[in-house]
Amino acid sequence: MSAAPKLFACPKDTAIVLLGTGVVGCALLRLLATPAASGLYLVGAANSRRQIANARGVVPTQVFAALGASTLPRDDAALLAALDASGASCRVVVDATASGEEAAQHAAWLAAGFHVVSANKAATGEKLSAWQDLHRAAARGAVSYGDAATVGAGLPVLSTLRRLHACGDRLLALDGVFSGSLSWLFNHFDGSRPFSALLRDARAFGYTEPDPRIDLGGADVARKLLILARSAGHALDVADVEIESLVPPQLRDIDMADFLNRMEELDGEIEARRAQAAREGGVLRFLARLDERGRAHVGLTQVAPTHPAARLAGTDNLFALTTQRYQVQPLVIQGPGAGPEVTAQALLGDLLTLRRNVAA
Amino acid sequence: MSAAPKLFACPKDTAIVLLGTGVVGCALLRLLATPAASGLYLVGAANSRRQIANARGVVPTQVFAALGASTLPRDDAALLAALDASGASCRVVVDATASGEEAAQHAAWLAAGFHVVSANKAATGEKLSAWQDLHRAAARGAVSYGDAATVGAGLPVLSTLRRLHACGDRLLALDGVFSGSLSWLFNHFDGSRPFSALLRDARAFGYTEPDPRIDLGGADVARKLLILARSAGHALDVADVEIESLVPPQLRDIDMADFLNRMEELDGEIEARRAQAAREGGVLRFLARLDERGRAHVGLTQVAPTHPAARLAGTDNLFALTTQRYQVQPLVIQGPGAGPEVTAQALLGDLLTLRRNVAA
Ligand SMILES: NC(=O)c1ccc[n+]([C@@H]2O[C@H](COP(=O)([O-])OP(=O)(O)OC[C@H]3O[C@@H](n4cnc5c(N)ncnc54)[C@H](OP(=O)(O)O)[C@@H]3O)[C@@H](O)[C@H]2O)c1
Ligand SMILES: NC(=O)c1ccc[n+]([C@@H]2O[C@H](COP(=O)([O-])OP(=O)(O)OC[C@H]3O[C@@H](n4cnc5c(N)ncnc54)[C@H](OP(=O)(O)O)[C@@H]3O)[C@@H](O)[C@H]2O)c1
Repeated sequence: MSAAPKLFACPKDTAIVLLGTGVVGCALLRLLATPAASGLYLVGAANSRRQIANARGVVPTQVFAALGASTLPRDDAALLAALDASGASCRVVVDATASGEEAAQHAAWLAAGFHVVSANKAATGEKLSAWQDLHRAAARGAVSYGDAATVGAGLPVLSTLRRLHACGDRLLALDGVFSGSLSWLFNHFDGSRPFSALLRDARAFGYTEPDPRIDLGGADVARKLLILARSAGHALDVADVEIESLVPPQLRDIDMADFLNRMEELDGEIEARRAQAAREGGVLRFLARLDERGRAHVGLTQVAPTHPAARLAGTDNLFALTTQRYQVQPLVIQGPGAGPEVTAQALLGDLLTLRRNVAA
Repeated sequence: MSAAPKLFACPKDTAIVLLGTGVVGCALLRLLATPAASGLYLVGAANSRRQIANARGVVPTQVFAALGASTLPRDDAALLAALDASGASCRVVVDATASGEEAAQHAAWLAAGFHVVSANKAATGEKLSAWQDLHRAAARGAVSYGDAATVGAGLPVLSTLRRLHACGDRLLALDGVFSGSLSWLFNHFDGSRPFSALLRDARAFGYTEPDPRIDLGGADVARKLLILARSAGHALDVADVEIESLVPPQLRDIDMADFLNRMEELDGEIEARRAQAAREGGVLRFLARLDERGRAHVGLTQVAPTHPAARLAGTDNLFALTTQRYQVQPLVIQGPGAGPEVTAQALLGDLLTLRRNVAA
């Protein structure tokens, strides 16, 4: 229970522009039309080709039609101008794209006094210097950066790591399954069907990226590991994470259509590893780990059937946090770590936290 | 990552009085002496018999000596006066007692503009009307009530339920093991030793209340279930929770010393239930459940060895949240749900949140 220390007089206290109207952006638009989002005012939206902006407000349910009819050129500055013109005390850019170009703007927006709420991992999960720039920019702009959606699709893991870190607790180790698609794949890979067949299903269900190599290569998991470690105060850089890719060298640099036709080439090696694990009574899981010595590793690992990761279902993620004060038994958070609805809810949660914390 | 939207000029921006210097209060005093607590100023402390107060600050590490030497009468009003005299913009009462009398004051303190941070479940886990009074008082005083320590000793379950509720997600079911002592007892009860012998160990390790019937009776678990359900927006009252006590009628009303001598009387029935469960391939766990129809139940339950509760270790708690948006697979939080250090850390976390959110 908590009462807001300050209440807002202005009806348009929190103005938002939304970048990205794909599956996550679209789910957020649905949430913005619910009573839970009251007090949040959409003043602009964009996809990669078009945008709309109206400082007096845009109806969330009409964004698609309006984008379709829009002739405005794609231009972030016009969206920021709508935030300014709204007169709202709290101005937020929500990034629901996977665009590196937009991510590269986050620091500038923060420094200019715009809050940023992001599902896009490109700003925080890449170079350490970029992460540090974001921190400095947020301090300069006296604004917040909401990133709950970037790891575990809003499972309360980043907030927990930050709370423990703020309380002086030290993260000793971090373990788990950080990818919904890889969780699903290995939860189902029991030898009854080839790995490539499961991969086709996972792609059809929307669990993988359009190009599944983004998942299989481990880079997405490594980004999440970096975001988690940094939130706990570890200054980890990209080169500090050892990644074992599931994509064999000959399939790495071909184009996507080609890869989709040649996925069966994955099967031989991965089935051999599965069979070997099964002979030893184990199963395969795609794990990420940061250990006590600060070594970070991402890759396929054989675990016993009693291992917590062996018991996951669906697209469940798993995060086991071992800290100085959670040392004998870790603090564990588990649950669906992907999906448009929970990811959009994570964005909404960050927006509501902003709204609560920012005085009018 | 988040930057405080307002920074504080005043060095004594958050003043605290601490009620209770038992194991949790004592652990909090240790944390208040660390850099993590910078900006938090202790101006008073009390146990059930003595108190100290000094608006210019009390050194956390000297509280015990000062209490020993104190001749001040025990009087909450003098502690509140020290908060007022401190000149701090944010004045907080921390309740680390189990006192019903102190809990009964929480609403009045809130209404008077004092924030309250509590490990004491008596204010929020009893009558629904008392819970509602607290809410109204916090709104009237424009202050917050921090209760992270009351359930799961700071595992991020209350914050998660509140975030989901604020986002319009509906709690459909809540399941788990909410008691560290009962978790430990049934994680270890395998028939090799009588239940009463384990109970003696648990008490010696400090896992149970001095009077273990408070744990065994289920009332403590029921209080946590009420706090959880209410945080998710369910207006549940005490009478709505069905409790199956492990204490047989003839041991309920005798005095504590008597009970401690007669604990062997628990063994017959509980061993019979264990053996029966084992014959059916199951194990016993003390579970709490709120189901889709709003029915709340607390009691000993036979579960399969594959049930998540069957795999707990130590004093682990388990919380499985099934909501409209986490419906296929629940959101699960698991880990140590008791212990002075993590409980004190939960209090500190609430204090730091207050400090961050309250403008100077
Ligand atoms: N899906 C999940 O479960 C999940 C979970 C956690 C995090 N995320 C993250 O959330 C983000 C969005 O994921 P998604 O699944 O919604 O992807 P998506 O369906 O591919 O949608 C991406 C959207 O971004 C738009 N876009 C691309 N570049 C843009 C730019 N420069 N300016 C404005 N819009 C731009 C695209 O526009 P067009 O429509 O014109 O192509 C599209 O609308 C990603 O960063 C993803 O990693 C997703
Ligand atoms: N221990 C845990 O792991 C844990 C976890 C979660 C929540 N909690 C909760 O945290 C609270 C404290 O637990 P604990 O284990 O620290 O208990 P404890 O060791 O028994 O300490 C209780 C303290 O409260 C003091 N006290 C009692 N009535 C008081 C009053 N009216 N004014 C001021 N002080 C008063 C006692 O004073 P004396 O020293 O004079 O007796 C004692 O110092 C309880 O509500 C408990 O349920 C504990």
